[in-house]
Amino acid sequence: MSNAWLDDIRWTEEGLIPVIAQQADTGKILMFAWMNRESLALTVTEGYAVYWSRSRGKLWRKGEESGHKQKIVAIYLDCDEDVILLKIEQQGGIACHTGRESCFYRQLLDGQWQAVEAVLKNPADIYKKI
Amino acid sequence: MSNAWLDDIRWTEEGLIPVIAQQADTGKILMFAWMNRESLALTVTEGYAVYWSRSRGKLWRKGEESGHKQKIVAIYLDCDEDVILLKIEQQGGIACHTGRESCFYRQLLDGQWQAVEAVLKNPADIYKKI
Repeated sequence: MSNAWLDDIRWTEEGLIPVIAQQADTGKILMFAWMNRESLALTVTEGYAVYWSRSRGKLWRKGEESGHKQKIVAIYLDCDEDVILLKIEQQGGIACHTGRESCFYRQLLDGQWQAVEAVLKNPADIYKKI
Repeated sequence: MSNAWLDDIRWTEEGLIPVIAQQADTGKILMFAWMNRESLALTVTEGYAVYWSRSRGKLWRKGEESGHKQKIVAIYLDCDEDVILLKIEQQGGIACHTGRESCFYRQLLDGQWQAVEAVLKNPADIYKKI
Protein backbone atom coordinates (compact mmCIF):
# COMPACT_ATOMS: atom_id res chain seq x y z
CA MET A 1 0.00 0.00 0.00
CA SER A 2 1.20 3.46 -0.82
CA ASN A 3 2.13 5.71 2.07
CA ALA A 4 1.21 8.87 0.18
CA TRP A 5 -1.43 9.61 2.82
CA LEU A 6 1.37 9.89 5.39
CA ASP A 7 3.26 12.28 3.13
CA ASP A 8 0.15 14.47 2.91
CA ILE A 9 0.51 15.33 6.58
CA ARG A 10 2.33 18.47 7.66
CA TRP A 11 4.38 17.13 10.53
CA THR A 12 5.88 19.47 13.12
CA GLU A 13 9.63 20.08 13.10
CA GLU A 14 9.84 17.22 15.61
CA GLY A 15 7.98 14.95 13.17
CA LEU A 16 4.76 14.91 15.19
CA ILE A 17 1.07 15.66 14.74
CA PRO A 18 -1.49 16.43 17.48
CA VAL A 19 -4.30 13.91 17.79
CA ILE A 20 -7.77 14.28 19.30
CA ALA A 21 -9.50 11.08 20.45
CA GLN A 22 -13.29 11.14 20.44
CA GLN A 23 -15.64 8.39 21.57
CA ALA A 24 -17.39 7.40 18.34
CA ASP A 25 -20.92 6.76 19.60
CA THR A 26 -21.30 9.58 22.16
CA GLY A 27 -19.04 12.24 20.64
CA LYS A 28 -17.30 12.75 23.98
CA ILE A 29 -13.72 14.04 23.77
CA LEU A 30 -11.57 11.62 25.70
CA MET A 31 -7.98 12.73 25.30
CA PHE A 32 -5.36 14.58 23.30
CA ALA A 33 -1.94 13.19 22.43
CA TRP A 34 0.70 13.13 19.71
CA MET A 35 1.70 10.73 16.97
CA ASN A 36 4.72 10.42 14.77
CA ARG A 37 4.76 8.81 11.35
CA GLU A 38 5.48 5.34 12.69
CA SER A 39 2.78 5.46 15.36
CA LEU A 40 0.14 6.67 12.92
CA ALA A 41 1.05 3.94 10.44
CA LEU A 42 0.84 1.36 13.26
CA THR A 43 -2.50 2.78 14.38
CA VAL A 44 -3.88 2.02 10.93
CA THR A 45 -2.36 -1.42 10.55
CA GLU A 46 -3.14 -2.57 14.12
CA GLY A 47 -6.58 -0.94 14.33
CA TYR A 48 -5.88 0.49 17.78
CA ALA A 49 -4.45 3.87 18.77
CA VAL A 50 -0.67 4.00 18.99
CA TYR A 51 0.69 7.35 20.15
CA TRP A 52 4.15 8.82 20.49
CA SER A 53 4.97 9.59 24.11
CA ARG A 54 6.91 12.83 24.12
CA SER A 55 7.83 12.47 27.79
CA ARG A 56 9.11 8.93 27.42
CA GLY A 57 10.38 9.35 23.87
CA LYS A 58 8.89 6.09 22.62
CA LEU A 59 5.87 4.48 21.02
CA TRP A 60 2.90 4.30 23.34
CA ARG A 61 0.33 1.63 22.62
CA LYS A 62 -2.56 3.16 24.52
CA GLY A 63 -3.90 0.62 27.00
CA GLU A 64 -0.90 -1.69 26.86
CA GLU A 65 -0.69 -1.61 30.67
CA SER A 66 -4.22 -0.63 31.68
CA GLY A 67 -6.12 -2.62 29.07
CA HIS A 68 -7.86 0.62 28.10
CA LYS A 69 -7.18 0.30 24.41
CA GLN A 70 -8.78 2.54 21.80
CA LYS A 71 -10.28 0.70 18.84
CA ILE A 72 -10.18 2.82 15.72
CA VAL A 73 -13.52 3.58 14.06
CA ALA A 74 -12.47 6.41 11.73
CA ILE A 75 -9.54 8.77 11.13
CA TYR A 76 -9.91 12.37 9.97
CA LEU A 77 -7.44 15.08 8.91
CA ASP A 78 -8.09 18.80 9.19
CA CYS A 79 -7.96 21.47 6.50
CA ASP A 80 -4.35 22.42 7.31
CA GLU A 81 -3.21 18.79 7.29
CA ASP A 82 -1.69 19.21 10.73
CA VAL A 83 -4.24 17.77 13.18
CA ILE A 84 -5.73 14.26 13.35
CA LEU A 85 -9.14 13.37 14.76
CA LEU A 86 -9.70 9.76 15.79
CA LYS A 87 -13.14 8.33 16.35
CA ILE A 88 -12.65 5.42 18.68
CA GLU A 89 -14.28 2.88 20.93
CA GLN A 90 -12.68 3.30 24.35
CA GLN A 91 -12.25 -0.10 25.95
CA GLY A 92 -13.03 -0.14 29.66
CA GLY A 93 -14.73 3.24 29.35
CA ILE A 94 -11.70 5.01 30.83
CA ALA A 95 -9.23 7.08 28.81
CA CYS A 96 -7.61 9.16 31.56
CA HIS A 97 -4.81 7.99 33.80
CA THR A 98 -6.75 9.52 36.72
CA GLY A 99 -9.39 6.82 36.27
CA ARG A 100 -11.95 9.07 34.63
CA GLU A 101 -13.68 8.56 31.30
CA SER A 102 -12.14 11.70 29.82
CA CYS A 103 -8.97 13.70 30.44
CA PHE A 104 -11.05 16.88 30.13
CA TYR A 105 -12.69 16.48 33.52
CA ARG A 106 -12.13 20.00 34.85
CA GLN A 107 -14.47 22.81 33.92
CA LEU A 108 -13.90 26.53 34.42
CA LEU A 109 -16.63 27.52 36.91
CA ASP A 110 -16.63 30.69 39.00
CA GLY A 111 -13.06 31.42 37.93
CA GLN A 112 -11.70 28.04 39.00
CA TRP A 113 -11.01 24.69 37.36
CA GLN A 114 -13.41 22.32 39.07
CA ALA A 115 -13.57 18.55 38.62
CA VAL A 116 -16.95 17.68 37.12
CA GLU A 117 -16.39 14.00 36.30
CA ALA A 118 -16.30 11.08 38.67
CA VAL A 119 -13.31 8.78 39.09
CA LEU A 120 -14.57 5.44 37.76
CA LYS A 121 -11.61 3.38 38.92
CA ASN A 122 -8.75 3.93 41.32
CA PRO A 123 -5.60 4.62 39.26
CA ALA A 124 -3.67 2.34 41.62
CA ASP A 125 -5.93 -0.49 40.49
CA ILE A 126 -5.67 0.41 36.83
CA TYR A 127 -1.91 0.14 36.74
CA LYS A 128 -1.33 -2.45 39.45
CA LYS A 129 -0.03 -4.91 36.87
CA ILE A 130 3.08 -2.82 36.34
CA MET B 1 -11.23 38.44 39.67
CA SER B 2 -8.19 36.36 40.38
CA ASN B 3 -6.30 35.01 37.41
CA ALA B 4 -5.07 31.95 39.27
CA TRP B 5 -6.92 29.75 36.76
CA LEU B 6 -4.64 31.13 34.04
CA ASP B 7 -1.58 30.35 36.15
CA ASP B 8 -2.79 26.75 36.51
CA ILE B 9 -2.19 26.20 32.80
CA ARG B 10 1.06 24.71 31.57
CA TRP B 11 1.76 26.94 28.59
CA THR B 12 4.20 25.89 25.89
CA GLU B 13 7.59 27.59 25.67
CA GLU B 14 5.92 29.98 23.22
CA GLY B 15 3.24 30.77 25.79
CA LEU B 16 0.50 28.87 23.96
CA ILE B 17 -2.00 26.11 24.60
CA PRO B 18 -3.77 23.93 22.02
CA VAL B 19 -7.55 24.31 21.91
CA ILE B 20 -10.23 21.95 20.59
CA ALA B 21 -13.56 23.51 19.60
CA GLN B 22 -16.58 21.23 19.82
CA GLN B 23 -20.16 22.03 18.88
CA ALA B 24 -21.98 21.87 22.22
CA ASP B 25 -25.27 20.29 21.16
CA THR B 26 -24.07 17.76 18.59
CA GLY B 27 -20.57 16.96 19.93
CA LYS B 28 -19.08 17.51 16.48
CA ILE B 29 -15.42 18.55 16.48
CA LEU B 30 -15.22 21.75 14.47
CA MET B 31 -11.64 22.97 14.64
CA PHE B 32 -8.34 23.06 16.46
CA ALA B 33 -6.33 26.19 17.14
CA TRP B 34 -4.08 27.86 19.72
CA MET B 35 -4.52 30.42 22.44
CA ASN B 36 -2.13 32.50 24.48
CA ARG B 37 -2.86 33.89 27.91
CA GLU B 38 -4.40 37.08 26.60
CA SER B 39 -6.66 35.36 24.08
CA LEU B 40 -7.94 32.87 26.65
CA ALA B 41 -8.68 35.66 29.12
CA LEU B 42 -10.51 37.57 26.36
CA THR B 43 -12.44 34.43 25.42
CA VAL B 44 -13.81 34.29 28.95
CA THR B 45 -14.58 37.99 29.31
CA GLU B 46 -16.09 38.39 25.81
CA GLY B 47 -17.91 35.05 25.77
CA TYR B 48 -16.70 34.23 22.25
CA ALA B 49 -13.62 32.32 21.12
CA VAL B 50 -10.51 34.44 20.67
CA TYR B 51 -7.51 32.50 19.38
CA TRP B 52 -3.86 33.33 18.80
CA SER B 53 -2.96 33.14 15.14
CA ARG B 54 0.52 31.65 14.96
CA SER B 55 0.83 32.41 11.25
CA ARG B 56 -0.20 36.05 11.62
CA GLY B 57 1.28 36.52 15.08
CA LYS B 58 -1.77 38.29 16.47
CA LEU B 59 -5.07 37.85 18.27
CA TRP B 60 -7.72 36.21 16.13
CA ARG B 61 -11.30 36.87 17.05
CA LYS B 62 -12.85 33.90 15.30
CA GLY B 63 -15.57 35.14 12.94
CA GLU B 64 -14.47 38.77 12.94
CA GLU B 65 -14.47 38.74 9.13
CA SER B 66 -16.82 35.85 8.31
CA GLY B 67 -19.38 36.41 11.06
CA HIS B 68 -18.83 32.78 12.05
CA LYS B 69 -18.26 33.50 15.72
CA GLN B 70 -18.07 30.80 18.36
CA LYS B 71 -20.19 31.47 21.43
CA ILE B 72 -18.69 29.87 24.52
CA VAL B 73 -20.85 27.31 26.33
CA ALA B 74 -18.21 25.70 28.56
CA ILE B 75 -14.42 25.51 28.95
CA TYR B 76 -12.53 22.42 30.06
CA LEU B 77 -8.89 21.68 30.94
CA ASP B 78 -7.25 18.28 30.61
CA CYS B 79 -5.42 16.25 33.24
CA ASP B 80 -2.00 17.57 32.20
CA GLU B 81 -3.19 21.20 32.25
CA ASP B 82 -1.93 21.68 28.71
CA VAL B 83 -4.97 21.32 26.43
CA ILE B 84 -8.25 23.27 26.42
CA LEU B 85 -11.60 21.96 25.21
CA LEU B 86 -14.23 24.53 24.28
CA LYS B 87 -17.87 23.66 23.96
CA ILE B 88 -19.33 26.26 21.65
CA GLU B 89 -22.27 27.32 19.54
CA GLN B 90 -20.91 27.85 16.04
CA GLN B 91 -22.67 30.82 14.48
CA GLY B 92 -23.53 30.34 10.82
CA GLY B 93 -22.90 26.60 11.15
CA ILE B 94 -19.50 26.92 9.47
CA ALA B 95 -16.18 26.73 11.31
CA CYS B 96 -13.81 25.95 8.42
CA HIS B 97 -12.35 28.50 6.04
CA THR B 98 -13.18 26.08 3.21
CA GLY B 99 -16.88 26.72 3.85
CA ARG B 100 -17.54 23.42 5.62
CA GLU B 101 -19.05 22.88 9.04
CA SER B 102 -15.86 21.26 10.39
CA CYS B 103 -12.17 21.50 9.55
CA PHE B 104 -11.95 17.71 9.93
CA TYR B 105 -13.71 17.02 6.64
CA ARG B 106 -11.28 14.46 5.22
CA GLN B 107 -11.45 10.83 6.22
CA LEU B 108 -8.84 8.16 5.62
CA LEU B 109 -10.59 5.72 3.28
CA ASP B 110 -8.85 3.13 1.11
CA GLY B 111 -5.48 4.64 1.97
CA GLN B 112 -6.43 8.15 0.88
CA TRP B 113 -7.73 11.30 2.55
CA GLN B 114 -11.17 11.76 1.04
CA ALA B 115 -13.49 14.73 1.56
CA VAL B 116 -16.65 13.48 3.26
CA GLU B 117 -18.31 16.79 4.11
CA ALA B 118 -20.08 19.18 1.79
CA VAL B 119 -19.06 22.78 1.23
CA LEU B 120 -21.96 24.78 2.70
CA LYS B 121 -20.84 28.15 1.42
CA ASN B 122 -18.34 29.35 -1.15
CA PRO B 123 -15.28 30.68 0.71
CA ALA B 124 -15.20 33.61 -1.71
CA ASP B 125 -18.62 34.60 -0.41
CA ILE B 126 -17.66 34.08 3.23
CA TYR B 127 -14.78 36.52 3.09
CA LYS B 128 -15.98 38.92 0.40
CA LYS B 129 -16.19 41.78 2.90
CA ILE B 130 -12.42 41.91 3.20
